[in-house]
Amino acid sequence: MRRWNGWGAIGAAERVPDEALRLLAAAIGPGRPRPDATFEDVVAAVPASRLDGESGLSTEPADRVRHARGQSLPDWIALRSGRLPWLPDAVARPASEDDVMAVFAVAQRADAVVIPYGGGTSVVGGVTLAAGDPLPAITLATEALAGLQDLDEESGLATFGAGTLGPDLEAALQPHGLILGHFPQSWERATVGGWVAARSVGQQSIGFGRIDELFAGGRLVAPAGTLEMPPFPASAAGPDLRQLILGSEGRFGVVTEAILRTVPRPPREAVPAWFLPDWSRALVAAREMARSGLPLSMARVSTPAETESLLALGGRPGRVRALRAWLRVRGVGPEPSLLLVAASGTEKLVELAVREVGSIVRRHGGTRVGGSLGRQWLGNRFRTPNLRDALWDAGYAIDTLESAVDWSRIGALAKGVQGALATGLEAEGERVHVFGHLSHLYPSGSSLYVTYVFRLADDPDATRERWRRLKTAASEAIVAGGGTISHQHGVGRDHAPYLALEKGPLGMAVLDDVARRFDPDRRMNPGALLEMDAS
Amino acid sequence: MRRWNGWGAIGAAERVPDEALRLLAAAIGPGRPRPDATFEDVVAAVPASRLDGESGLSTEPADRVRHARGQSLPDWIALRSGRLPWLPDAVARPASEDDVMAVFAVAQRADAVVIPYGGGTSVVGGVTLAAGDPLPAITLATEALAGLQDLDEESGLATFGAGTLGPDLEAALQPHGLILGHFPQSWERATVGGWVAARSVGQQSIGFGRIDELFAGGRLVAPAGTLEMPPFPASAAGPDLRQLILGSEGRFGVVTEAILRTVPRPPREAVPAWFLPDWSRALVAAREMARSGLPLSMARVSTPAETESLLALGGRPGRVRALRAWLRVRGVGPEPSLLLVAASGTEKLVELAVREVGSIVRRHGGTRVGGSLGRQWLGNRFRTPNLRDALWDAGYAIDTLESAVDWSRIGALAKGVQGALATGLEAEGERVHVFGHLSHLYPSGSSLYVTYVFRLADDPDATRERWRRLKTAASEAIVAGGGTISHQHGVGRDHAPYLALEKGPLGMAVLDDVARRFDPDRRMNPGALLEMDAS
Repeated sequence: MRRWNGWGAIGAAERVPDEALRLLAAAIGPGRPRPDATFEDVVAAVPASRLDGESGLSTEPADRVRHARGQSLPDWIALRSGRLPWLPDAVARPASEDDVMAVFAVAQRADAVVIPYGGGTSVVGGVTLAAGDPLPAITLATEALAGLQDLDEESGLATFGAGTLGPDLEAALQPHGLILGHFPQSWERATVGGWVAARSVGQQSIGFGRIDELFAGGRLVAPAGTLEMPPFPASAAGPDLRQLILGSEGRFGVVTEAILRTVPRPPREAVPAWFLPDWSRALVAAREMARSGLPLSMARVSTPAETESLLALGGRPGRVRALRAWLRVRGVGPEPSLLLVAASGTEKLVELAVREVGSIVRRHGGTRVGGSLGRQWLGNRFRTPNLRDALWDAGYAIDTLESAVDWSRIGALAKGVQGALATGLEAEGERVHVFGHLSHLYPSGSSLYVTYVFRLADDPDATRERWRRLKTAASEAIVAGGGTISHQHGVGRDHAPYLALEKGPLGMAVLDDVARRFDPDRRMNPGALLEMDAS
Repeated sequence: MRRWNGWGAIGAAERVPDEALRLLAAAIGPGRPRPDATFEDVVAAVPASRLDGESGLSTEPADRVRHARGQSLPDWIALRSGRLPWLPDAVARPASEDDVMAVFAVAQRADAVVIPYGGGTSVVGGVTLAAGDPLPAITLATEALAGLQDLDEESGLATFGAGTLGPDLEAALQPHGLILGHFPQSWERATVGGWVAARSVGQQSIGFGRIDELFAGGRLVAPAGTLEMPPFPASAAGPDLRQLILGSEGRFGVVTEAILRTVPRPPREAVPAWFLPDWSRALVAAREMARSGLPLSMARVSTPAETESLLALGGRPGRVRALRAWLRVRGVGPEPSLLLVAASGTEKLVELAVREVGSIVRRHGGTRVGGSLGRQWLGNRFRTPNLRDALWDAGYAIDTLESAVDWSRIGALAKGVQGALATGLEAEGERVHVFGHLSHLYPSGSSLYVTYVFRLADDPDATRERWRRLKTAASEAIVAGGGTISHQHGVGRDHAPYLALEKGPLGMAVLDDVARRFDPDRRMNPGALLEMDAS
């Protein structure tokens, strides 16, 4: 059973290797575990629903608690401490588009707002209203709108219900020899509709495509009506409305189904690894690789600090010592950068891509290592979030954030964001452990993915205040560095204050007009994406 | 000097090979040349401008005639016959964004409309108002907003003024070892701003990217203000406003500059050719190629009728006879389909891609031919439009149209559109010569590009009426076949009646809201894209 106040299944939390805990204690001090609230206590404290008696809604307190938060760090702090000043008044589980419209009708009648909810994996406050929101809220869960609804095998176009989870999606395609290849870290718990609404990016998106490239068309059901987006392979017929729906985060309506572009499952996939001598040479090699036009499906370049953390998390200190010794012999170190690459395709294409990466890396002083790091990555690719549970239990808060910027600014952005986080709690004498990697390499630039760890405070409000300081410092560093406020996590409520800096006042006015057209009464997910009242 | 009433330079019209004229005469009857109006006579007949005396505008009759039409067939009919019932009242040539805003101010004061004009290469009525439009019109030519304005070599991000022509753009990148790789057939005369505004697709866009993939950001100057679009490599920060500007066809404002994603010039390019035994096997092979993930920059599959026409246009009947004899020996024919492929990249990547295409083609009974067809295509890739001048002089009208649809429907779409054209003038006893090709192969489907030739009528109005019947029949066949009304030409005024079928009423309302936000008085390019009055 999935735990109600974290990521993993109950009891399935990863163990944090001793080596990693030692490293963390040395870096920022020993962890300070805090007691958790129990599910029963939290459920018992749920206030009465303002929507009791409305048809087709669940107002069960347990149901409301399970849909009260996403997976952001503030969400975790709320759940672990049991302090939930805001909860939805009801949960709806529409099983058809008519049902979705019926939910809108109830919301209209009851003057309520509607929060679309896929897998509840938002890490940016996508499914949670602020405390004290005056209107009753219906969380519209898409779980009953799931499954493969149509498959055009010749074209590889697969129509899925919004609530389909990642593994169910690939399992439905597998018998047909097809693959979508969209693997965000949240893949096991996230839904197709959420991917579209939040502009999801998968780990292998530079090969298989981001969701904005895979989403050929589909349907949006809005209070004002339904938008049908036909799945043309490409079109010059005016502005692309799909690209307005992608990233709309529930403000325009509910994405009920998505027509996705699948491809034949590649016959071969390789995940080789290299070490580069230092971060600056890693950056140069990464840029050269990205601009070479090589057919890769993933390329991930870790800072030396992340490289060290990953090795520690591998939990095999003997092997790591041997690896380090060997790297020194090869002239790589003492602060090497790990490069992980995936190539997916025909046997020959994969071979060629790996060979050409190797020759670029060698030119920059790097050296290839055996296949175990690649296998480790493949094995852990969806399990890493479980570490959040384990670290929390050990008294540490861990969070991630990300951006993207052009190559000429990526080095400065990485430095600026990591520096802002590392020193962000100096005022209260707390240290922060920070590391990062480039997760998606593009011809014109790269994404940057940063992980930071700090100690829990005695009080949940104080822990949240630490997070707020760090998040603000990092967001300001992203803006100062010219990066987008999000490459892959979306905007939600946490990033909403920064959106206008990218879109400009005219752009924000356009988005507001569009929201009003789809949702004239502004009942849809108020506060997410666009900062405005639901009124 | 570029001719005022056609495509090519004056005197540079291609000669139509005798073989091709024979084929055409046999197919649809001998051509019926019509006399042209002279530039002098047309200029002499230009009515007085309603904007005489307004500052910063040219109201010279010759200038107004040269900006009166694009390159659609109705535009040609108007120019060749000298019947121009609508002309702009003035031409503006802003050299800065302030100048653009000054033009808007003049338009406001004089209650005029503004028609952005790049290279004037629209083939869908993108720059021409209907006869009898009540408001004076200013054609805003972007020619003075041209050139490379900024280059971030590390990221390959190149900022160009909207009026930059294709050859000038590549010439500015060439010393830096960079290439954009955007080569629409109109490349020599079309502009960066026009590409963005009309969602242009280049011949090698499956490799280098369509303009919607190459346009990283830039600026739109609208009556309501300026929209700045930052050039992130990718972003999940809400809906993508660039994708609203792409395809906006001047309705939202003027794209003044574009930040484009360039890449290192590939060290090698190959353009091999194969013949497939028939159209149905060509379709199967094309689909397999497109879904294989091979790194190609072009793939073009001609119907047997186009294959025959291309061979005839090559103008070397002896060689064609030898080729046909050789194909028969190889078991290909008598109605073969030509497949042209381009691969661009490193030596080894190109080799591999060509080898893998070869093995797919062989599985479907195809055979490779020597390099002359590829060289012929490379040599003629921007010259084919000149044939329109030559055919017109020989008494024939030639036009093209295009669409895109998924693989499961492409065969029926090709048949439907070509059939509708072939029989479209039966009522008046005229025949139509029709051929086509798949021009852009995508994993989920393909574009379809169709050329049709018919004889000029005695009277230009009657010729236009022939075009109108054929265009309507083809557009209805596109809609019936599930295709987009345009894969690469855009919407303009000719396709505007079909746009709502793709976007739906809610989608059209959204586009209308956005237009109103950027251009509250609706002065921008009225009638293009969205069917509505400028009032």
